[in-house]
Amino acid sequence: MSTITTDNGTSSAHRDGSYSSLPNNLVRAANGIDYAYRDTGPKATGGVPLVLFQHFRGNLDNWDPALIDGLASARRVITFDNAGVAGSTGTTPNTVEQMAQDAIAFIAAMDLGQVDLLGYSIGSFAAQQVALTRPAIARRLVLASAAPQGAAGMHGWAPEVIGAIGTPETSPEEYLDVFFTRSSSSRQAGQEALQRMYTRTQDRDTATTWATREAQYDAVCTWGIPDHALLQRLSCLEMPVFVANGDSDPMILPHYSYLLAGLIPQAHLKIYPDSAHGFLFQHHADFAADIEAFLSDPRPDADRARRR
Amino acid sequence: MSTITTDNGTSSAHRDGSYSSLPNNLVRAANGIDYAYRDTGPKATGGVPLVLFQHFRGNLDNWDPALIDGLASARRVITFDNAGVAGSTGTTPNTVEQMAQDAIAFIAAMDLGQVDLLGYSIGSFAAQQVALTRPAIARRLVLASAAPQGAAGMHGWAPEVIGAIGTPETSPEEYLDVFFTRSSSSRQAGQEALQRMYTRTQDRDTATTWATREAQYDAVCTWGIPDHALLQRLSCLEMPVFVANGDSDPMILPHYSYLLAGLIPQAHLKIYPDSAHGFLFQHHADFAADIEAFLSDPRPDADRARRR
Repeated sequence: MSTITTDNGTSSAHRDGSYSSLPNNLVRAANGIDYAYRDTGPKATGGVPLVLFQHFRGNLDNWDPALIDGLASARRVITFDNAGVAGSTGTTPNTVEQMAQDAIAFIAAMDLGQVDLLGYSIGSFAAQQVALTRPAIARRLVLASAAPQGAAGMHGWAPEVIGAIGTPETSPEEYLDVFFTRSSSSRQAGQEALQRMYTRTQDRDTATTWATREAQYDAVCTWGIPDHALLQRLSCLEMPVFVANGDSDPMILPHYSYLLAGLIPQAHLKIYPDSAHGFLFQHHADFAADIEAFLSDPRPDADRARRR
Repeated sequence: MSTITTDNGTSSAHRDGSYSSLPNNLVRAANGIDYAYRDTGPKATGGVPLVLFQHFRGNLDNWDPALIDGLASARRVITFDNAGVAGSTGTTPNTVEQMAQDAIAFIAAMDLGQVDLLGYSIGSFAAQQVALTRPAIARRLVLASAAPQGAAGMHGWAPEVIGAIGTPETSPEEYLDVFFTRSSSSRQAGQEALQRMYTRTQDRDTATTWATREAQYDAVCTWGIPDHALLQRLSCLEMPVFVANGDSDPMILPHYSYLLAGLIPQAHLKIYPDSAHGFLFQHHADFAADIEAFLSDPRPDADRARRR
């Protein structure tokens, strides 16, 4: 394993501790991939790191710095580009199973041991698969705008969604249409989130490619091939899981969060008001506080204990 | 079909319109059963009647009059004893399928045409089965403290639950332990609900028998035999469904309401705070208002329309 800081990590811009000024790092994994990542929050406390899995076509700069800084106030938080995505080398796979294998290789390369996973959108698919394939490394799981493999009605995004964020060049307006609602407060929150994501002007991550978009969308559609039997996979997840969704998410409807929370034995569910796919950016303070409460709860499974 | 008022329906006690003073009626169905029922709310408006399916071991007097009066302020509401239960003749069946057939026979005997169904606890099992067996008569469905057939972990009530409300003689304290939480506000609400249920001193319904308890619990356990494939049954429900649960229900955990809302295509979900199996009595005003909003919404399926 080797860790390389690829930009000037000693510049003053990277010393205020905010996500928007963190250095981009690279770590080489056993699979030969150099993974781009950013690493923030307290490392000395011996706590469990939180590893974040990004959304469709997203890179390190598509995490709202306000959310990451909120999460990192109490724990180590690591964002990364999976294999073939943005600043990482390799090829983006077209299956969630391989994305999970690639993520497991990154976590191993970072020598993180057991981690908490926060998967967002397609990242939630990969995080579920990591928890299924390698449960020993997943202490707790956060699934944001998520859906289980095989759920009916999930075979690709809705036409207006893929039409907005699936095109070669996506405009800020198209991004806002999917990630925020039509209400003035949500739209305003969206503008502010975009501003925070673009605060960083130097050392921005590499843009994701069309090949990544194609491979990821193949994986999304394959994950969404309806198969009721596959829903039962989640019954073996033994770790506590927090399931969260925007109430008006056009990309992954709250319906699928209900389904996840009903299929996973130890699930907590929260639906955030007046919000869409970007609910976790719009409600970044509440969401970070909810995640912190969930991850630090000594007995998140009290509900489970009451079930036979 | 014959309709018989079995008590003095002209007494002043039955004229204030409150559920606690309604007459008990009997209607003979084609299956030869005389069903006990009460009928309230406006009948002349041409609206769709709401038919209520009662909980384990419950009879007509186990509906909180405050809830029924709230529901009946805007629509016709009918409560009934299913076959073999309390004031109805016949034998309580030990399968949900037969309970559904018996309920369909009652609805036909009453000449109600299409109805809305509110199923509560074991009554929610029967209401689901009615909607599956005879979808044409179910316009909309309310499932309170409900669970789908075949869900894992539902094979009978938890030991502390059946130990409290499954005994030959159940005390008010045991009832409160299952239907209300330990908080002072919930416990107070429980005392008040019990008082309202016992306001009626004349013409109370017949108590349910031990044979009813045994048959109903056989049906509960049979419904709860785990079978993942059976969960898919609900995907064919095309009507709008409102799923509701107390957040601390020890009898049917909110987990199962998540599952229902994730399996039913057009489901709305609400979890009521600091409440247990009796959440709909504790929060009778909110619940009645939520049900009224759901049943009168001209487009409850807006969410559905956005899904492919």
